[in-house]
Amino acid sequence: MTFAPASTTANAVAATSAGTPGVPLTASGQAAFGRAVALSCRECGERSPIGPRYVCESCFGPLETAYDFGAITRADIERGPASIWRYAPLLPVPADVADRPNLNPGWTRLVRAGNLGKELGLRSLYVKDDSGNPTHSFKDRVVAIALEAARSLGFTTLSCSSTGNLAGAVGAAAARAGLDSCVFVPAGLETGKIVMAAVYGGRLVAIDGTYDEVNRFCSELIGDEAGEGWGFVNVNLRPFYSEGSKTLAFEIAEQLGWRLPAQIVIPIASGSQLTKIDKGFKELIALGLVEDRPYRIFGAQAEGCSPVSAAYKAGRDVVQPVRPDTIAKSLAIGNPADGPYVLDAVRRTGGAVEDVTDAQIVDAIRRLARTEGIFAEPAGGVTVAVLKKLAEQGKLDPDAETVVINSGDGLKTLDAVAGTGVTATIKPSLAAFRAAGL
Amino acid sequence: MTFAPASTTANAVAATSAGTPGVPLTASGQAAFGRAVALSCRECGERSPIGPRYVCESCFGPLETAYDFGAITRADIERGPASIWRYAPLLPVPADVADRPNLNPGWTRLVRAGNLGKELGLRSLYVKDDSGNPTHSFKDRVVAIALEAARSLGFTTLSCSSTGNLAGAVGAAAARAGLDSCVFVPAGLETGKIVMAAVYGGRLVAIDGTYDEVNRFCSELIGDEAGEGWGFVNVNLRPFYSEGSKTLAFEIAEQLGWRLPAQIVIPIASGSQLTKIDKGFKELIALGLVEDRPYRIFGAQAEGCSPVSAAYKAGRDVVQPVRPDTIAKSLAIGNPADGPYVLDAVRRTGGAVEDVTDAQIVDAIRRLARTEGIFAEPAGGVTVAVLKKLAEQGKLDPDAETVVINSGDGLKTLDAVAGTGVTATIKPSLAAFRAAGL
Repeated sequence: MTFAPASTTANAVAATSAGTPGVPLTASGQAAFGRAVALSCRECGERSPIGPRYVCESCFGPLETAYDFGAITRADIERGPASIWRYAPLLPVPADVADRPNLNPGWTRLVRAGNLGKELGLRSLYVKDDSGNPTHSFKDRVVAIALEAARSLGFTTLSCSSTGNLAGAVGAAAARAGLDSCVFVPAGLETGKIVMAAVYGGRLVAIDGTYDEVNRFCSELIGDEAGEGWGFVNVNLRPFYSEGSKTLAFEIAEQLGWRLPAQIVIPIASGSQLTKIDKGFKELIALGLVEDRPYRIFGAQAEGCSPVSAAYKAGRDVVQPVRPDTIAKSLAIGNPADGPYVLDAVRRTGGAVEDVTDAQIVDAIRRLARTEGIFAEPAGGVTVAVLKKLAEQGKLDPDAETVVINSGDGLKTLDAVAGTGVTATIKPSLAAFRAAGL
Repeated sequence: MTFAPASTTANAVAATSAGTPGVPLTASGQAAFGRAVALSCRECGERSPIGPRYVCESCFGPLETAYDFGAITRADIERGPASIWRYAPLLPVPADVADRPNLNPGWTRLVRAGNLGKELGLRSLYVKDDSGNPTHSFKDRVVAIALEAARSLGFTTLSCSSTGNLAGAVGAAAARAGLDSCVFVPAGLETGKIVMAAVYGGRLVAIDGTYDEVNRFCSELIGDEAGEGWGFVNVNLRPFYSEGSKTLAFEIAEQLGWRLPAQIVIPIASGSQLTKIDKGFKELIALGLVEDRPYRIFGAQAEGCSPVSAAYKAGRDVVQPVRPDTIAKSLAIGNPADGPYVLDAVRRTGGAVEDVTDAQIVDAIRRLARTEGIFAEPAGGVTVAVLKKLAEQGKLDPDAETVVINSGDGLKTLDAVAGTGVTATIKPSLAAFRAAGL
């Protein structure tokens, strides 16, 4: 279940000889994976060395990155760059990562949403607006970490299975880093996402099937000679990739003044973003960077693809796969890999998982635009609509600091607000203006 | 030629009584226009008090903001927020501007463009990527300043004439600030720009005509009772609005390590962005924030709308209006208000103005995406194509620090790269993958 790329991790192997045995170094002599020391199985806890593997050899559980952080202070972080790299000591990346060609994502706006809060009866509401990332979705965060791992492990082609946003993020990151790219998406994606995935010059392959079928196909490709030397950011690079979502937790806490929010609403696709934000909060507490106080995590799904919400509501631990049918295509993962971990985090923190209809999603997109001037893609409509539903159900403390995540950009999904257009078309004259009743 | 809105600048007038006579205060008791002390005519230099006026009463020349800066240090700025408001002391805004509901634009990435530089033979090239702003164009900068002026002067509707990007920026800013909005655009704009202008819930009016006709119509509306209480950000609020472009100069200098670039390529629409970047550089020098060393300013136009380039090449001081015909719609201003000032700045600094064809623009969009992972709208294609042309003509020093501006986002103008799509569509099988020759 490990994967050795064809290029035999030349960089890593060559560099290792000069440093501590077993710890790969970059060309500049820095530890290639920073303070990460091992990969650790999320099921059985067994550790294995850092490398191009993503499944536990003992129990086939998923691997994640384990660290030996040492001491990290707020001041260390605050003097860093205005990107995710201010948190480099908390990520599996070399210390000089900000100097290597990548998209420098992150440090997006945390918007005090007074108008939306008023409409929903929430007195202290913030939107974490990740549409400000380079390719306008949170995926730039995770891809940036995977790119570093790909370089350190000697992969030459960057790849992924994607519902759209990830394909654009991989294409852009690979272009800038000078790597080949080949990304896989389900056929029938929104035009904006297709163009944004293709414009950077890499290969874009549409698959006749759902995202889950695309994903299965990518796993096949990894085992085949056709996939040799390919780093699939969300498959064989997943232990590194998924760490990128922690930066959402770090930024939210720092932007609140080094404080965890009491309540947070997070979209669920694979569920990785939610579980990694939880991991990020826990790391901040463990390092003494924030006060250890309770926070509640809420998960958001579209009704047309709500396997985790269904399991939560039924009190089940097992997530039953579904066939997605929703306008929230970036959340349309019917068999979410992190589903059980999402249920754990939500139940442990006293949160909930809720789902909303396509009509509620569109209403929420318009509401967020009208109240805060933020134009979200349907995934952002899902979180805002779930926020509204939870508020109406009395499941949120209206006085507690609450954050809702917008993970993507409305410009990529114009069809979701079809019918949005000009109020009137007139001749350039005052008479015409008056006649139009404007 | 002054304009008093219907609401009689209630905030400003009421607040004035509590402070220095003639200096309007905000509700929180701060000077509403910060360290700005007057409006000054760009033609005859005559000063008038700050207020809702934009044309000199003596000579009908355009007004701009004049300041009494006092001392401002790098440290003052560096401890500010990651937005244009870190430069609040250099702008006509109150000191507490960052706490008022606005989009907090700016502090966008300055990208070291090593790959593009290599292709063009430029050893130290940077892209200032303003697609990272909240509505994904540099217009968020200028609108944020105009919004503050509108509030301080008591306007209740935010308006503009726009080639597209400005309409979205005004719609979003007004929504968040709780103001009405009504924006005017030429009919036939790109879908992305239309939806982004309309989705925030304000009125979007398409005018049968060119941008220049839209602009003339807006001037008529300002003189009419139908426009009472309306702040047209780029007409009657222009002395404030245009100051926002200075923040591009400030950010570039700070991001280079408090140093002016030796060469900069800037798009020309009205010409305001270029002249205000020049003003920003001069202010930094005057304040001792950067070393006083020469910089050369280059202007970029599309061949299909190149009145300033034509005047430059002909050695003329007068800019002859044209009827635009180019895919670079955001630069399609046939009668650029700041044309003569652009010629001044370019000639004074030893730069040049150049223009490029639509085909060169599209090629440059793809080149920038392929080399640096940045997806620009045609205006960004114009600057990159002009950069290439200037480099080929030997008009740029290949060793000098050079900045090229990308002012907008390719997602709004997908038609410009029509034909960009999937490499192949296949069934989810290795056999299909191999058969497709991927």
